[in-house]
Amino acid sequence: MVQDFFFNVNDPDAGLFRELTSGVTTRVFVGEQAMLSLVTIEPNAQGTIHSHPEEQWGVLLEGDGVRIQGGEEVPVEVGDFWRTPGNVPHGFRAGAKGAKVLDVFAPPREEYKKAGQGFGTADA
Amino acid sequence: MVQDFFFNVNDPDAGLFRELTSGVTTRVFVGEQAMLSLVTIEPNAQGTIHSHPEEQWGVLLEGDGVRIQGGEEVPVEVGDFWRTPGNVPHGFRAGAKGAKVLDVFAPPREEYKKAGQGFGTADA
Repeated sequence: MVQDFFFNVNDPDAGLFRELTSGVTTRVFVGEQAMLSLVTIEPNAQGTIHSHPEEQWGVLLEGDGVRIQGGEEVPVEVGDFWRTPGNVPHGFRAGAKGAKVLDVFAPPREEYKKAGQGFGTADA
Repeated sequence: MVQDFFFNVNDPDAGLFRELTSGVTTRVFVGEQAMLSLVTIEPNAQGTIHSHPEEQWGVLLEGDGVRIQGGEEVPVEVGDFWRTPGNVPHGFRAGAKGAKVLDVFAPPREEYKKAGQGFGTADA
């Protein structure tokens, strides 16, 4: 059914649930060439700085925070988006409002194809 | 500079401009493994039904409309997103408010790596 290919960013039951670290959870949607990850970051929580060979794009859907990428910190607002080439260390620290980030991985990250815990890399 | 990797969905000057068809324009952001396309569809305008081998994901950022995929029509609201496997015919018809859609292509579509016109496929 075509409806099986349609989702909503605010559906709490959609996707594969994953706790990345304390205060940072995601729901993962697996494709063949790309994977989407809807990350919820609690106020002032921060994801572990990590890297992986897959390219990543992020879009800030709600809240505020700081994108940490390549050792630099970039404050971001709703509507900002960014590209993270493969193997560039990165992370995100939410501001006082918390944050919701839509991440895209291409190709899909093997570690995220099942529910679980952690960023899924050796340094996470 | 790390800032070269950061953009905003409402920046009218960012990305490669492309007129897909009458009333449907986009700004394209080219990556190595994926490509983002920010599509603006005028009220009641419709993109040509077309297909391509690359996987596509779409997110409705603003407005309303109908996603046409695999011969079926699915009404969508802000926050809805969808996956379109490679080679599945698809298009979008905006409602009275028009629509802004964030599309992701993986791998990047060669036709969209430069500014221009058209959907870039034989049947567009």
